[in-house]
Amino acid sequence: MSMPALRQFQRVEPERVERACAELLRTLSQGQVRRDEDTLAAYARDESDSGVYRPDAVVYPETAEQVSAVFKVCNAHGVPFTPCGARSGKSGGSLPLCGGMAVSLERMKRIRSISVEDLTAVVEPGVVTGDFMKAVEAVGLFYPPDPNSWEFCTLGGNVAENAGGPRALKYGVTRDYVIGLEWVLPDGEIVRVGRRTIKGVAGYDLVGLFVGSEGTLGVATEITLQLIPLPRKVMTALVVFPSVMQAARGVSAVLAAGILPRCLELIDDVALRAVDGRGFHFPPGAGAAVIAEVDGNNEDGLLAELSQLGDICTAQGATQTLAAQDDSQREKLWAARRSISPALRALKPHKISEDIVVPRSKIPEIIERLKAMGAEMGLTVATYGHAGDGNLHANILYEGPHQRPLVEEALRRMLVMTVELGGTITGEHGVGHAKREYLSLEQQPALIELQRRLKLFFDPSGLLNPEKIFPAPERS
Amino acid sequence: MSMPALRQFQRVEPERVERACAELLRTLSQGQVRRDEDTLAAYARDESDSGVYRPDAVVYPETAEQVSAVFKVCNAHGVPFTPCGARSGKSGGSLPLCGGMAVSLERMKRIRSISVEDLTAVVEPGVVTGDFMKAVEAVGLFYPPDPNSWEFCTLGGNVAENAGGPRALKYGVTRDYVIGLEWVLPDGEIVRVGRRTIKGVAGYDLVGLFVGSEGTLGVATEITLQLIPLPRKVMTALVVFPSVMQAARGVSAVLAAGILPRCLELIDDVALRAVDGRGFHFPPGAGAAVIAEVDGNNEDGLLAELSQLGDICTAQGATQTLAAQDDSQREKLWAARRSISPALRALKPHKISEDIVVPRSKIPEIIERLKAMGAEMGLTVATYGHAGDGNLHANILYEGPHQRPLVEEALRRMLVMTVELGGTITGEHGVGHAKREYLSLEQQPALIELQRRLKLFFDPSGLLNPEKIFPAPERS
Repeated sequence: MSMPALRQFQRVEPERVERACAELLRTLSQGQVRRDEDTLAAYARDESDSGVYRPDAVVYPETAEQVSAVFKVCNAHGVPFTPCGARSGKSGGSLPLCGGMAVSLERMKRIRSISVEDLTAVVEPGVVTGDFMKAVEAVGLFYPPDPNSWEFCTLGGNVAENAGGPRALKYGVTRDYVIGLEWVLPDGEIVRVGRRTIKGVAGYDLVGLFVGSEGTLGVATEITLQLIPLPRKVMTALVVFPSVMQAARGVSAVLAAGILPRCLELIDDVALRAVDGRGFHFPPGAGAAVIAEVDGNNEDGLLAELSQLGDICTAQGATQTLAAQDDSQREKLWAARRSISPALRALKPHKISEDIVVPRSKIPEIIERLKAMGAEMGLTVATYGHAGDGNLHANILYEGPHQRPLVEEALRRMLVMTVELGGTITGEHGVGHAKREYLSLEQQPALIELQRRLKLFFDPSGLLNPEKIFPAPERS
Repeated sequence: MSMPALRQFQRVEPERVERACAELLRTLSQGQVRRDEDTLAAYARDESDSGVYRPDAVVYPETAEQVSAVFKVCNAHGVPFTPCGARSGKSGGSLPLCGGMAVSLERMKRIRSISVEDLTAVVEPGVVTGDFMKAVEAVGLFYPPDPNSWEFCTLGGNVAENAGGPRALKYGVTRDYVIGLEWVLPDGEIVRVGRRTIKGVAGYDLVGLFVGSEGTLGVATEITLQLIPLPRKVMTALVVFPSVMQAARGVSAVLAAGILPRCLELIDDVALRAVDGRGFHFPPGAGAAVIAEVDGNNEDGLLAELSQLGDICTAQGATQTLAAQDDSQREKLWAARRSISPALRALKPHKISEDIVVPRSKIPEIIERLKAMGAEMGLTVATYGHAGDGNLHANILYEGPHQRPLVEEALRRMLVMTVELGGTITGEHGVGHAKREYLSLEQQPALIELQRRLKLFFDPSGLLNPEKIFPAPERS
């Protein structure tokens, strides 16, 4: 949950929605335009906990042409429209803040093709990321981006948010795999950007601009992805440390030694205690842990790498390095990692979860400063996540609304110290609704203004996904 | 050389240049504004052979503020301005087609910092790529992008063109390593885009948009790059085939088997004969060759990979796999590869060199079709390059100007067949001046129009690097 979330925005007039819905029913079937209370309530929230904003209608286009038609109708009638996928986003990007249409891409869920020879695939935006991973792995290919929500999030949402995940450390994020897009612009025009080849530099890199634009510059109706050969071996180890500071220094030391695991995930003391015993038992004395995962084609090489990694961590104070002996042990480790977020939620009635990034060398310092801040303010701070690339999920746990002003201050201090250390306020969740008022901590006014104008260039009506990313303009 | 190159453009009026130069001398020293004939002649061409276009002055700013001042003065006086680096580009991107100022970034050549702990570096745009590679390798880090011209091209030029190179197969291209930019917009405003961290999604990905914008949306005055640990071992092999078709099928088979070497370069029969004996002797009977290079930290693993690669190629008809036994043999192999372009130039008085890309599965087909086209038209076609990612340097050799209409037809046929096979007209050289009239073979009119408007959004005066990338508008 992020603090400035409870603001209300001016909603669109009901009669505009009526007219738009009536017109849409000339193109879409009854089942593609839903306005029942249960549906509207379901599309009023996402995983960001940043407020409840009910759309006036939810539409389910099934083709690019239908998406285009919806956008055109909304423009014609002055109705805001906000794309959504699985609504698993963490920054409120899919919340229809001003009402209007929620445009769900979830029915466009075909994997159109997978080419083993070309190492590419073509998918619709509603394909669930995990389903896609399994489909390509079944033919010996690998799609590395693995947001924590891969079991239910969609590739279209991943494109909108430029989703990352633990494997980003070695393999990069969603934008590193998107080579082409069929894209519906805010005015309803359908363009094809990018290409079907691995390389290509013809024209401006609009794929680069559109990936991560958080549903504010248009929406993907077809995504062409590059894939890589599936590594034949994966090995995973749990490295146990007495304290989180030793674990953070261990992470830095591993990278400085020239080892690039595919994942290097940190679990701090609070997170560790929250998940301990929930299907996975940490050894006694564990104060923090690192999950390290390496992959490649040569088993001996990987064993040597993992063993070197263990030695480096031991030199930083690690007490044990436990290698998973089989897939079931590996899966248990990762299930524990994935359960941190819900487990923390069970510790205290409320939490806010940030995904800050600092330069890797600053990981120990930010963790130390966050813990000190928590102690000083009387708040519980839990830090875990993709420490290998400096992307930490920093959580503040609290008791209830009476603590909100305190938490709000803590959040601001956390983001300020992140930026002071050369970091960014969001590594993979996006700015969306949740962090728009903090963007100016990181970006200069001229840059924010340039981006605002760029949004207006693509969306002169401002009806596509309004009130997102950029801070509300100052009232004069 | 590309065909539509000899067009002339309307040049700026001399008095505007006079006034702009006079004003610039209030900010810059005499030595930073040069107008002598030798200098103007040197900045009138690049490595594209696509014509000679003399600037009216060459300016050498040394700071971002000076670049900004130059841009502002040019805007104020209506003088076109075109950035350049080492002028090693292959598509005419740095040619001042309409005269005016050549803005050389070559004096901004400091490596500002290299951080072993963060795996990042901050450089000025005039740093020579090869110097940077050596500097980071000296501290155990690796900057993978390796355009053929790395010994003299600059990082600023690499950013402008989104340069690739053989290692792109495994490691990606320049844009995959640029995380932040200090950028001077066409109106002279200086903005900082991107970040200093490995991950980050705050705001639009303007780094993605600016990298590869070919000097038409502004210029980088500082570049923040991410690095990776230097692989401890590199092994290189030459695989000899009787024919280019067998070699092309060998490349496809290696990738289909799940092997991802860092380079997989093809040398066809014409290219092979052109370099044979120039410091490197191919075995008798060699009709084509593949250079394969693998890297990693485990020697045994790499040996196994190279041996498997050799077996796969043997099954496709390879007669020999020769592993380089030491660095000197490795360097000889790569020197032969780098000498292909000049060696082909020696075979016939003229050549045009394209850098098409096709989906990997289409490599054998495009090579076959190009050879057939050459035979049918009586032209020599040489194909070599980064076959592993489908990026081929396809060359047409010819005798002289009397063959130009024929060559022009061959070039168009080559690009048409590339696009028909799902490919792109440029993999890494850019569109620039050389290929602007061919962009519409690949991109739909709506997309070209959108990009034209985007250029106008950033550069309303149109004075920055005019007449590039997009086809000349139809005269009405």
